[in-house]
Amino acid sequence: MQRHFDEELRQLKEQLSAMAGLAEQAVGKSVKALVDRDPRLAQAVMDEDAAVNRLEVEIENACLSLLARYQPEAKDLRTIAMVFKIVNDLERVGDQGVNIAERTIDLLKEPLLKPLIDIPKMAALAQQMLKDALDAFVNQDAELARAVCRRDDEVDHLNDQIYHELLVYMTQDAKTITRAIDLILIGRHLERVADHATNIAEDVYYLVKGTTIKHRLAGT
Amino acid sequence: MQRHFDEELRQLKEQLSAMAGLAEQAVGKSVKALVDRDPRLAQAVMDEDAAVNRLEVEIENACLSLLARYQPEAKDLRTIAMVFKIVNDLERVGDQGVNIAERTIDLLKEPLLKPLIDIPKMAALAQQMLKDALDAFVNQDAELARAVCRRDDEVDHLNDQIYHELLVYMTQDAKTITRAIDLILIGRHLERVADHATNIAEDVYYLVKGTTIKHRLAGT
Repeated sequence: MQRHFDEELRQLKEQLSAMAGLAEQAVGKSVKALVDRDPRLAQAVMDEDAAVNRLEVEIENACLSLLARYQPEAKDLRTIAMVFKIVNDLERVGDQGVNIAERTIDLLKEPLLKPLIDIPKMAALAQQMLKDALDAFVNQDAELARAVCRRDDEVDHLNDQIYHELLVYMTQDAKTITRAIDLILIGRHLERVADHATNIAEDVYYLVKGTTIKHRLAGT
Repeated sequence: MQRHFDEELRQLKEQLSAMAGLAEQAVGKSVKALVDRDPRLAQAVMDEDAAVNRLEVEIENACLSLLARYQPEAKDLRTIAMVFKIVNDLERVGDQGVNIAERTIDLLKEPLLKPLIDIPKMAALAQQMLKDALDAFVNQDAELARAVCRRDDEVDHLNDQIYHELLVYMTQDAKTITRAIDLILIGRHLERVADHATNIAEDVYYLVKGTTIKHRLAGT
């Protein structure tokens, strides 16, 4: 019985990793569309979101089926509950990719405001946090989870930097305002991706260690 | 056995309603702090967020305990899974309250940019959506859930209106830019509150009807 359960749990984690891959790609591609000024890639991100949403429903149903058929206890039960929460975060990461793609399509109607440096840097950071948070879950690695939480500050710092730099543009030239706001909002969307990665990592830490770092580390 | 389970489930729903009340108040108070220009109320919202976070952990643990002790099936199982998801949304609603409070404290350092009309209207709408989504869950009311999803468009429309109005201020007078951006971001935070209410309502609909309106109604 336990062997069958373990095998199904392994498959569930694989599905989850696949979903995480898609959500992370949505973010990566939407920022690539912005950098390369490629509206077709931005459109592709919006079209591909349906696959992320389908996986959400599939994985949730698989969790419920596992609970109903095996009635797992203790750590197995908490692991499945955790999959349930992670799926929720991943779905929203996918949505952030869509949000960025929408802003990008807006932005591509006007000339480039400034060379993009911090936004791709922030995207790379947030994507790596998401990957690491998922690895921390799959490998039950509390230290990696803690490291993800710590990196959230770095993303917040980049976001502040983006904001203040764009403020200067707006103040000096009113014609830059709409583009600057789009870029500020893209910064916010990336910050949220990092927040989701942090949420996942906090929960992994709790799952492995049994104590929470939530709303403590994250707030520092 | 079933009677004990039903009683505990009833208590769980009460805890959830209490948490929803706190999260919704955080949003209400933060906007009241903005309208009344009351930094102490804004600070209170930030201080009170810990209570929302504590309830999140308590309710999640209560869910796991229920699953472990009663091994519920079918609809009971799905209801508990749903509580798990709702708690996640509510915690983030509380965070949006904190975000609005932070922006408010920033805004109160400068004179009022313009009389606030649409933001309180948006807040009232989003708060009502949240209340209705919770009522829909507690009473298993699919029609109320569907109505919540439909109102999301209204919030989005108000948010666009706020954005375009503030854009005019910024373009005409660079001194208004930082305040206008703070107000635009508050609009976004309220939009997210409505999104969380919509998430909950979509899940309630699925729980009651067994078919999803997710990513369909919400996107229209």
